[in-house]
Amino acid sequence: MNSAVDLPLGLADLAFAASGDALVRRTILPSGVRILSEHVPGSRSATLGYWVAVGSRDETEAVPGSLGSTHFLEHLLFKGTGTRTALDIAVSFDSVGGEHNAMTAKEYTCYYAKVQDRDLPMAVEVIGDMLTSSVLDPTEFENERGVILEELSMAEDDPADVANDRLFTAVLGDHPLGRPIGGRPETIRAASRDAVWRHYRANYRPRDLVITAAGAVDHDVLVAGVQRALDAAGWDRDEEAAPVARRSTTPATVQRSAGVVTVQRPIEQANIIIGLPGIVATDERRTTMSVLNSVLGGGMSSRLFQEVREKRGLAYSVYSFSGSYSDAGVYGLFAGCAPAKARQVTELMLAELHRLADGGVTPEELRRAVGQLSGGAALALEDSDTRMSRLGRAEISLGEFADLDESLRRLHLVTVDDVQELARDLAQRPVSVSAVGGVDDDVFAGLVS
Amino acid sequence: MNSAVDLPLGLADLAFAASGDALVRRTILPSGVRILSEHVPGSRSATLGYWVAVGSRDETEAVPGSLGSTHFLEHLLFKGTGTRTALDIAVSFDSVGGEHNAMTAKEYTCYYAKVQDRDLPMAVEVIGDMLTSSVLDPTEFENERGVILEELSMAEDDPADVANDRLFTAVLGDHPLGRPIGGRPETIRAASRDAVWRHYRANYRPRDLVITAAGAVDHDVLVAGVQRALDAAGWDRDEEAAPVARRSTTPATVQRSAGVVTVQRPIEQANIIIGLPGIVATDERRTTMSVLNSVLGGGMSSRLFQEVREKRGLAYSVYSFSGSYSDAGVYGLFAGCAPAKARQVTELMLAELHRLADGGVTPEELRRAVGQLSGGAALALEDSDTRMSRLGRAEISLGEFADLDESLRRLHLVTVDDVQELARDLAQRPVSVSAVGGVDDDVFAGLVS
Repeated sequence: MNSAVDLPLGLADLAFAASGDALVRRTILPSGVRILSEHVPGSRSATLGYWVAVGSRDETEAVPGSLGSTHFLEHLLFKGTGTRTALDIAVSFDSVGGEHNAMTAKEYTCYYAKVQDRDLPMAVEVIGDMLTSSVLDPTEFENERGVILEELSMAEDDPADVANDRLFTAVLGDHPLGRPIGGRPETIRAASRDAVWRHYRANYRPRDLVITAAGAVDHDVLVAGVQRALDAAGWDRDEEAAPVARRSTTPATVQRSAGVVTVQRPIEQANIIIGLPGIVATDERRTTMSVLNSVLGGGMSSRLFQEVREKRGLAYSVYSFSGSYSDAGVYGLFAGCAPAKARQVTELMLAELHRLADGGVTPEELRRAVGQLSGGAALALEDSDTRMSRLGRAEISLGEFADLDESLRRLHLVTVDDVQELARDLAQRPVSVSAVGGVDDDVFAGLVS
Repeated sequence: MNSAVDLPLGLADLAFAASGDALVRRTILPSGVRILSEHVPGSRSATLGYWVAVGSRDETEAVPGSLGSTHFLEHLLFKGTGTRTALDIAVSFDSVGGEHNAMTAKEYTCYYAKVQDRDLPMAVEVIGDMLTSSVLDPTEFENERGVILEELSMAEDDPADVANDRLFTAVLGDHPLGRPIGGRPETIRAASRDAVWRHYRANYRPRDLVITAAGAVDHDVLVAGVQRALDAAGWDRDEEAAPVARRSTTPATVQRSAGVVTVQRPIEQANIIIGLPGIVATDERRTTMSVLNSVLGGGMSSRLFQEVREKRGLAYSVYSFSGSYSDAGVYGLFAGCAPAKARQVTELMLAELHRLADGGVTPEELRRAVGQLSGGAALALEDSDTRMSRLGRAEISLGEFADLDESLRRLHLVTVDDVQELARDLAQRPVSVSAVGGVDDDVFAGLVS
């Protein structure tokens, strides 16, 4: 896992000071399982995550019913183990008022819980059991197929979700990151219990497992609890001692599959996203990208918000975003507006992207963006969810952990020239437009070359 | 203003211990403005709210363009004062990475910000200025009309939102709480700057203003800051010294306007809500209601989740909710499912409501619900947003503040008989069904008498 980046694998234990009074510790078990924790003094609760470094991009399009199997599996892990029924699992968390859920992403799957400090050992044990010892009962499998089809239907009824899925495919073409995370109704209908079982056994293994926790956490107690939970399931070793890199961090060559993609629907708004290839997660310009995104569409004082909403009243929701993965990324600009204004809004957003490339940012904008990002980072660390996620993403996606001080140091190094240079780079990349609503391709004719 | 409930108005200052180490203090200024704060030791951030006790229910249907004017006004307060432009306001918060927003509800409007401790004085000053000294510039007014129409369009494209709005009207008939918060496109198009200005001057006044803050807050500094901000705008006194009750807390007689209401749309899911008159905010059975709702549809182990999703795979999202206001409330059961299953799912949900009334809850279910609610309450207090909101709702809606210990004491007094008695009461109230999707009224024929 990620041996392509410089992780100190093999170190038995690594401790270093993190932001404020918190302390981050990292342990690697003999099996290769990695455990990271951040103790926050004064906290009475903890957030725990079991991260598996497998996501929708790791599915094989060639296998029928494979697409969506990572997400299907995530659902099934809640449906019972050799010693716990689905109801037992639900009751464990409900009866202590804990939050308990999971998310499937393109490059990882995360099972998490937020509980009071006294309930952390329970959460470690129950999620450990779910992850290692799920039975994938055939009857539960069929019931859950129905649940997942309803989840896909719900997403299909959300026009912004649909626009986003289509945009990724348009920008990234046939790259595996371009596929929707949950699969498609036909692949979910075709999925077999045996295929999902094989996916489970092949991908859920010690070397791909990262456990992170933040808040009222004692690292040694956490490590002992994880070991108990994993050892009980025979997860105390991994066949392959030396982890192999699952993924490359070298930017892939992506080929846009469409310049314009529209889904016509009889709804009130046109949901428009302009997208282009972004930067990879480990790109050294990632801090510059945060600044650029803050200036372009990151808040109420951003250029998109001011030009599209404040000055012209054309949209309620308008913003930009950057999505980065191991070997590809997408940069996007979103607006929801009246279909009759779709072309005007798209032109305005494209113009702002080019204005940033041609004219750069002002020192005042840079100062404001740095303030926004540093203040936001400090605020986010007030809750243990953010700290838990930060540890997981650092280990799975970045291969390094930067504490608040280090993040702020990098942020203050960004110059107006850095931002303009990145904007110029982005502005000459091939652009796609995805739109859902009362619009067709002709609305965007000539806007995208 | 809630003087109908037992608020210790007139006390200059009231301090009492709150949950954990936190301390709640309350001050009433000579003008009648109320200020509540909860200091949380160790916190480095604060959440601040300016609450005005006016909501959509306080609009007058008879005045053209009145419906939605509370929400319209909320937007306009971000658009500039005598000394700050809209951009100035946005920059104030963006440049320190603060969160800054507002919400309009049926019985209040709240302007809030979450900032680092050092930025709290700025937040107190800027929101105070927005609230007292907005200019409602005519050009900004026209731009914002467009923004609000887009916000309504976005909500109209969300089938669950539409089902919820229709349900409230079906259950509460022509009671003002039955109206949608944002108004309707035609009332927003008809709204005039002068009418919104009159609404502003009539309803934004010291006696209806409550300021709450939680986290890294020094009460005396907060009070001094608020006074500075309000005095500068001449808000140091209120014409009416003795506050009059804005609202009654006696349950109103509501008359259902429809048994079944459907909005046919060519979408994947049917979004179904079963609703009936609920309890008022000050009802002494409100803790029993929380328990009942937890058992029926409050988590993964709840009856609705188990029967509709886990056993049959008919829905992804299924839950129940209780909405309580000063003189009326709505209790609801929601599911999103395939249109072909809409009748079956509705029957299942109704059956669970009646099973609760007929058979009550088991001691095990009661124990689990108490655990869920008490654990959830403890977890929620980890962030200052929840504490800030709790203070505001206590002051505006409940007229009393119950700390965690008192809430837990009440929770442990709830018996299985209490829950069954409330379930019986609810089950004999007139039921309405609201559905949006590929269904028509016939689907629900005979289910609602």
